Amino acid sequence: MTDCIFCRIAAGEIPAKVVEENDDLVAFHDLSPQAPVHVLIIPKQHLAGANDIGEGEAPLIGRIWARIPRIAEALGVRDTGYRVVTNCGAPAGQSVFHLHFHLLAGRAMGWPPG
Amino acid sequence: MTDCIFCRIAAGEIPAKVVEENDDLVAFHDLSPQAPVHVLIIPKQHLAGANDIGEGEAPLIGRIWARIPRIAEALGVRDTGYRVVTNCGAPAGQSVFHLHFHLLAGRAMGWPPG
Repeated sequence: MTDCIFCRIAAGEIPAKVVEENDDLVAFHDLSPQAPVHVLIIPKQHLAGANDIGEGEAPLIGRIWARIPRIAEALGVRDTGYRVVTNCGAPAGQSVFHLHFHLLAGRAMGWPPG
Repeated sequence: MTDCIFCRIAAGEIPAKVVEENDDLVAFHDLSPQAPVHVLIIPKQHLAGANDIGEGEAPLIGRIWARIPRIAEALGVRDTGYRVVTNCGAPAGQSVFHLHFHLLAGRAMGWPPG
């Protein structure tokens, strides 16, 4: 059993409010939402963060990004705008060391992005 | 001739402080940096934004993400942390309608991300 919380969500061992799931990914609502819509999109495969994306992971990451507009559509925000953020490393705000993309929407997003 | 400023940067028609370039992408310093390191990573192919990423674009987008850790390394921030952000749609802060990923680093990044 892994102690990675996102691996356990991907395995269904920890419940989450899932928006969408396929062989590659799980998308679920963030427990500490920072916007009216705040969903995390994670690969089922464990990658610690963006630094772990190499050529071998490129097809998977591409498929995940091709899915993001459809997840945005399912959330009703595809045409009203959304921001996607990933933090790599603790100084950038990464707190769970399993690659995840934050999708935020439903309010005007400020600049700088944090 | 296109009037897309990022297509023109990709074509070398408009100068930019380029960090890295290959067949897929150009990475260059943002003219209005929001952090000590603030680089834009764009596909050379014109995509208006994240909503334009479909299955046909997945390999390209995957290759771009596989390159991001190397760009971070070239910038000296791979191990000290960085945030990658894309805005899809004007309410999310998109101002140039050519897909681009912001890579920000060199300071602590706040939360929420804008």
